[in-house]
Amino acid sequence: MQETFSGIVDLSRTGPISLYRQIYEQLRDAILSGRLAAGTGVPASRVMARQLSVSRNTVLAAVEQLAAEGYLEARQGVGTVVAVRLSEDLVRPERAEGAVRPPPHRVSRLAQRVAASGREMAPRGVPQPFQTGTPDIDAFPHDIWARLLRRVSRQLSRDAAAYAHTDGLPELRTTLSAYLRESRGVRAAPEQIFVTSSAQAGLDLLARAVVDPGGVAWIEEPGYLGARAALLGTGAEVVPVPVDAHGLKPGGAHPAPRLIYVTPSHQFPTGCMMPLARRLALLDLAGRTGAYVIEDDYDSEFQFRGRPVAALHGLDVAERVLYLGTFSKTMFPGLRVGYAVVPPGLAETLGRLQRNTGQIAPAAVQLAIAAFIEEGHYRAHLRRMRACYAERRDCLVAALRRHLGGAVAVEPPAGGMQLIAELQGEADDVGLAARLAGAGIEAQALSSYYLGPPAKRGLFLGFAAWSPEQIETQTALMARVLAASRPPSRAKA
Amino acid sequence: MQETFSGIVDLSRTGPISLYRQIYEQLRDAILSGRLAAGTGVPASRVMARQLSVSRNTVLAAVEQLAAEGYLEARQGVGTVVAVRLSEDLVRPERAEGAVRPPPHRVSRLAQRVAASGREMAPRGVPQPFQTGTPDIDAFPHDIWARLLRRVSRQLSRDAAAYAHTDGLPELRTTLSAYLRESRGVRAAPEQIFVTSSAQAGLDLLARAVVDPGGVAWIEEPGYLGARAALLGTGAEVVPVPVDAHGLKPGGAHPAPRLIYVTPSHQFPTGCMMPLARRLALLDLAGRTGAYVIEDDYDSEFQFRGRPVAALHGLDVAERVLYLGTFSKTMFPGLRVGYAVVPPGLAETLGRLQRNTGQIAPAAVQLAIAAFIEEGHYRAHLRRMRACYAERRDCLVAALRRHLGGAVAVEPPAGGMQLIAELQGEADDVGLAARLAGAGIEAQALSSYYLGPPAKRGLFLGFAAWSPEQIETQTALMARVLAASRPPSRAKA
Repeated sequence: MQETFSGIVDLSRTGPISLYRQIYEQLRDAILSGRLAAGTGVPASRVMARQLSVSRNTVLAAVEQLAAEGYLEARQGVGTVVAVRLSEDLVRPERAEGAVRPPPHRVSRLAQRVAASGREMAPRGVPQPFQTGTPDIDAFPHDIWARLLRRVSRQLSRDAAAYAHTDGLPELRTTLSAYLRESRGVRAAPEQIFVTSSAQAGLDLLARAVVDPGGVAWIEEPGYLGARAALLGTGAEVVPVPVDAHGLKPGGAHPAPRLIYVTPSHQFPTGCMMPLARRLALLDLAGRTGAYVIEDDYDSEFQFRGRPVAALHGLDVAERVLYLGTFSKTMFPGLRVGYAVVPPGLAETLGRLQRNTGQIAPAAVQLAIAAFIEEGHYRAHLRRMRACYAERRDCLVAALRRHLGGAVAVEPPAGGMQLIAELQGEADDVGLAARLAGAGIEAQALSSYYLGPPAKRGLFLGFAAWSPEQIETQTALMARVLAASRPPSRAKA
Repeated sequence: MQETFSGIVDLSRTGPISLYRQIYEQLRDAILSGRLAAGTGVPASRVMARQLSVSRNTVLAAVEQLAAEGYLEARQGVGTVVAVRLSEDLVRPERAEGAVRPPPHRVSRLAQRVAASGREMAPRGVPQPFQTGTPDIDAFPHDIWARLLRRVSRQLSRDAAAYAHTDGLPELRTTLSAYLRESRGVRAAPEQIFVTSSAQAGLDLLARAVVDPGGVAWIEEPGYLGARAALLGTGAEVVPVPVDAHGLKPGGAHPAPRLIYVTPSHQFPTGCMMPLARRLALLDLAGRTGAYVIEDDYDSEFQFRGRPVAALHGLDVAERVLYLGTFSKTMFPGLRVGYAVVPPGLAETLGRLQRNTGQIAPAAVQLAIAAFIEEGHYRAHLRRMRACYAERRDCLVAALRRHLGGAVAVEPPAGGMQLIAELQGEADDVGLAARLAGAGIEAQALSSYYLGPPAKRGLFLGFAAWSPEQIETQTALMARVLAASRPPSRAKA
């Protein structure tokens, strides 16, 4: 009973783990691995405290915790001993931490498909030019936003603070209902609008609501890899359908879809707008076959001249269109709020599903967004950003033409946050993007958005987040990387 | 060309929709439904403005938008006409809104299973006594929280504001790593901790990472309906495994599990704690079969005497335990932040999956939680709430005994936020809960947590969110409802 515990307990006095926690863990591991056998006496707390040079209270707390959890027990006349109740076949040497080689991990087939989807991991660190989809984060009115967040957080009502409204706070749903009607031609009652923890979550939720595992989902080719990965993650069979100058082209020998994912306002990545006739044809196909159409309206707020073309949703009389919006581009991505609009007949299904998948945005963030829109900050910010991004588009187009000359063809987009610099011929855009990454330039290879053989090659470049100076210097750098990549003169083998 | 548009455009001057939007929508619908035929001339803008009593700019904006979207076109020498390019078979009378009966909606089998799971829709409105799982929202230091949210929002770094860190902000992951080691015995590096948009999202994510559709998941019987619904939503085959006084009892003739969902610290709803021997047996089963164990540690912070029992996670040497935590009980539910802890070998899989399911919490909320913990507010709040909830537990136990007497048996729980008032005999607890709901009292029927025949019947009552006065008056009211429910004396047919 007076044996020394110095070989069992070895305390670090500099690390972050408390002495209490260390004594508790080390005694527990010794018991579980059999190094301290059942019935072994534990020294009196003052003895152990002296041996370990810690306070008696620390020892007492650890011993009491071990007793409460069943590792130690009091035996009359003897004191505290290692519990004999611990069945022998549960105490084994391999319970010592590190002594066991865990069985290999087995992940689900869905997780494997997502890993193989071709979508990279999330970027780390500060965004670099010319990351696509990234708005100008510095231009966002963070002070106004911080003030609104504080205001709504101080006044949070009991129902907003509790478990209610897993589908979205009424304030934001009502605000969005009016905003979407007026600015996007989307006619939806507040109850049809579901606020989610990102548009990606909305996409996942919508797909799970209407597609069974193995069901066919069409995506655009080339298209958004995030949509592909999300749909693979729901178990859908994803079929790439070629995009022409009018967007996704229905028809062709593709298996009949249950779901069609499109970006009709501004095709990602080609930038084309789906014209009326194609829109009506797509809706007709959906109405006839009962397929649903997901309209991802990711950046239509940034139309540089005139109003943006109305959403496909406004043309849908057969309740086929599921609309997706995001605040990642119009405010900033770290906000992590998006929304999905569904027909009335799907609202209950979506609400139940969302509650159980937990793809929910915090109450305060939802209320602050509603206030940000209602008090005019949202429209003002969009107006400023529209002018700013138009200028940066012009900057990037001019810089590309000046520095890269005939090596690329650039068509200035009518809006949005990125453009394509098309490389001539069979250029290796993937290799070029890798070399640019080595120089600190983020440029996506256009061919990486194709699942099949790429019809075009080029660089997909975001212009929204970078100052004219950055655009100029980084384009010049890009030109140097491009020049260094070319075979020296024409002496090609 | 000078025809009147008064039969086609009918403007409301009082509603929320702008005149521009109304003119645009009504002309568009008339074109799409064929009421305005291809080639029909549109009156000059000043004529239409006079007819409709609106400004000429409003008419011009609508006509320009319709032209930009392809509904109208300019014809030389004639002016603006309805576009003839619209293919005739796309223009149909049923395009008039309301004239079409949409095809029936077809939702996925998963969505149907979730709807049939027995879990109710989210509560609406302010929580009523004795809603379970609800903390005292008024006692939360909302002012401190609001100040922290504002502070981090004003200083949001570029990487936090952008698309990085879909798995969780480094600040919160590091803070949680230290906190979980010290307070719960969970040993996990920051990279193993995934911050999600609620613990429910973490559960959904974990299940999707390791269970294939049709794979077997064990849940506790009785158990948490939210876990059942979430697992059904991932396509798992859910098998209820009976709980005894030591929690879920492994063994028995159940199909071999791929996943086991347990609440070992404080079984939901029975409140029992899983003792050491059962914990080791469960981990042994998992290690032998390669099954994963989800440990949902939903409210262990509220242990009223001594420290809470360490998490199952700390005993796991074979990397089988997936740990789930939440801030819904320790802070407030509307925060919508939870976290999942996985073994190192699953971290990449989970990170990829989370990025693509969008179950992500806003950057500012994550940073504010990290600050709330680091600056000591979290521990202080927990300490206050522990004392407060212990007092309320005592209040409710005393009130139940005083007002309901022998009609119920109450075992005071050692911690948590709710208790069971067991009804004697074959009492209809579901009917009683419905009658109580009619009186404004929220009481869950214990039998509703069983999938099979209930072993016990009673009321599951939350005590954390209600003042001693509310507990007293609502328990007295409960007694009156209970008395009125009993058959009049013994003159039972």
